[in-house]
Amino acid sequence: MIYLDNAASTQIHEDVLNSMLPYLKEQYGNPSSLHRYGRLAHKAIEKSRKQIASLINAEPSEILLTSGGTESNNTALQGIAMKNTSGQIITSLIEHDAILEPCKKLEQNGFDVDYLPVNKFGMVDSSVLKSHISNKTSLVSIMFGNNEVGTIQAISELSKICNENNILFHTDAVQAVGKVPLDVKKLGIDLLSISSHKLYGPKGIGVLYIKNGIDIDPVILGGGQEHGLRSGTENVASIVGFGKACEMAKNNLNENISQIKKLRDNLVEKILNEIPEVVLNGHPQFRLPNNAHFTFLGVNGEDLIIKLDEYGIAASTGSACSVNTQKASHVLQAMGFSLEQITGSLRLTIGIFNDQKEIEQTVDILKKIVQELRAVSPFKEKYSFVSKN
Amino acid sequence: MIYLDNAASTQIHEDVLNSMLPYLKEQYGNPSSLHRYGRLAHKAIEKSRKQIASLINAEPSEILLTSGGTESNNTALQGIAMKNTSGQIITSLIEHDAILEPCKKLEQNGFDVDYLPVNKFGMVDSSVLKSHISNKTSLVSIMFGNNEVGTIQAISELSKICNENNILFHTDAVQAVGKVPLDVKKLGIDLLSISSHKLYGPKGIGVLYIKNGIDIDPVILGGGQEHGLRSGTENVASIVGFGKACEMAKNNLNENISQIKKLRDNLVEKILNEIPEVVLNGHPQFRLPNNAHFTFLGVNGEDLIIKLDEYGIAASTGSACSVNTQKASHVLQAMGFSLEQITGSLRLTIGIFNDQKEIEQTVDILKKIVQELRAVSPFKEKYSFVSKN
Repeated sequence: MIYLDNAASTQIHEDVLNSMLPYLKEQYGNPSSLHRYGRLAHKAIEKSRKQIASLINAEPSEILLTSGGTESNNTALQGIAMKNTSGQIITSLIEHDAILEPCKKLEQNGFDVDYLPVNKFGMVDSSVLKSHISNKTSLVSIMFGNNEVGTIQAISELSKICNENNILFHTDAVQAVGKVPLDVKKLGIDLLSISSHKLYGPKGIGVLYIKNGIDIDPVILGGGQEHGLRSGTENVASIVGFGKACEMAKNNLNENISQIKKLRDNLVEKILNEIPEVVLNGHPQFRLPNNAHFTFLGVNGEDLIIKLDEYGIAASTGSACSVNTQKASHVLQAMGFSLEQITGSLRLTIGIFNDQKEIEQTVDILKKIVQELRAVSPFKEKYSFVSKN
Repeated sequence: MIYLDNAASTQIHEDVLNSMLPYLKEQYGNPSSLHRYGRLAHKAIEKSRKQIASLINAEPSEILLTSGGTESNNTALQGIAMKNTSGQIITSLIEHDAILEPCKKLEQNGFDVDYLPVNKFGMVDSSVLKSHISNKTSLVSIMFGNNEVGTIQAISELSKICNENNILFHTDAVQAVGKVPLDVKKLGIDLLSISSHKLYGPKGIGVLYIKNGIDIDPVILGGGQEHGLRSGTENVASIVGFGKACEMAKNNLNENISQIKKLRDNLVEKILNEIPEVVLNGHPQFRLPNNAHFTFLGVNGEDLIIKLDEYGIAASTGSACSVNTQKASHVLQAMGFSLEQITGSLRLTIGIFNDQKEIEQTVDILKKIVQELRAVSPFKEKYSFVSKN
């Protein structure tokens, strides 16, 4: 199998799993317990909190542990919104559903939500953000790197506008943390969401970075864990694994980026050269190093995924989460794509476990499958489809 | 070490961990992905859902996966409350904070919450529930087995009153599921919370049982997982482990109950016989088979925990979660205990990995420690403290 769906989920690194095992075996205490089992579990959590903080240059006290990126996003939006009985929130049209759906709910509860447009590369224009800001704006939430097309926003420009206007700036950085250098202090970020399973850690654990001094309302209430901001017995083993994954991401960041980027660039180059009528989507420069997103004109992306799967290649049309809702990509729609362009989309996302041989095999198989699918395409008359090789 | 804090958290069973490992290693797909990694993960979740449902005689479609018991309780309360803009909710004074804290928030948001009293054994009187019901009541939430004193409520009496009055009945069964026979159909339960790590499964995973036909609002929104009722990439490995833990709990239920109850009864008997001025708290008959909760008059419970820990015994004064808030037990207060009685409390909770030898060692050590602590107790003049042996 060739796994090229690393934006959907990554394999847990062996060292991460090994760090978790003691907490899945003998160290099973509840971190709130006074006895040594409890104290050891508590200590392990605080070590992880430091490792996670360090990856984004935050303080450990700024790390709120959650059950994942979705909960982090919900907590940021609901947690800040609930501090204001009504008001305006600004986000973008290309956010993940874990931002868009809570925003819809806030609209139902009397909040105004502005959804900023993007250009054909998926970029938010900072001057457009500026024009939407009002004295009612309490929060701006713009994602760091897009989960479908990989476009990275001009975060420091956007956060600067917010900082100057005394508005909180949140970014959904689920796809970016551990993939690009990210310093919350330098970038002027107030709140930031992370998911462990996107960076070789376990599923079911995430973080909301909350800059010291910012007050939020908790979404999940109870025993008062996480200083009352997120109750529930801590998921110790997963927190430990997440910490280890962050430590490894930090230590290997440059090496990982250069390895993954090289494979991705090679994949893109080969596909654009060897397959006709294919377009690379997203921003040509400002994009996540692991992301390649294409439109194969005249092909149905889902057919492509299924065929690739038959050949042992795991890929995606876009967001894994959108499969549940069976919607056409709202990201590509916002970028001005026609339904035909959206239909032919394929996302290939590289991880640290991929190698050059897999890239070459993928291109060879993809070439063959695209040709087969186009031979039976209802659009076959429309495009030339002449193989370039 | 002798671990007698199984109500705070249990050790993951080896078979449970073994069931999880493939999903922490090679089966790392996102269950929403179309390729085989995704499909295998999805299939694993559905298998677990059946195992969990089977333990409480529910349908798989009635099992909503959450990040734990606390989230399940929050989802039940907020999820039902949000379906009604205002109204009355009835609960009890001895609930876990994961019920009481969301209730406080609902009160701030305009809901009326009635907190039913309990008798000295911690029992809610069903006639008192009846007298509190009004045509504004939308939900009653009464816990199944108390986490501190182990008292089991007359659930079928309480649910019957609710069913007859067309009011939804929720029970926090975090301490009860897998410890006592529990059939949601027979007991007339509409919503029920479960936590995996209380029954030899991993932390960070739980379930809210929602009877088919009951409509709730989601708390965590996003990609639409769990039929839109709980978004976020599913915690596959932990779900698989939770499923296995439920399957094992079902298969070994009677055997586990009789083993644990025998140890517990022996522990209680020995402590009451061999240590003077000690009282067993909670209901003498209607109690969780694993729970023993005492008041050692003239002793500070926290000193007792620390001393026991030095001797290698893990115990608790009451709820692990209350450590964060440093409050005196609201459960014991509701049962009419004086501060002195509350201060002297000790909870010992048995699990499947305990044995008779550990019980005997515990009693011997406890006897010694209680004597030592009482020798320096400010209350030493007040009680006789004459050893019965």
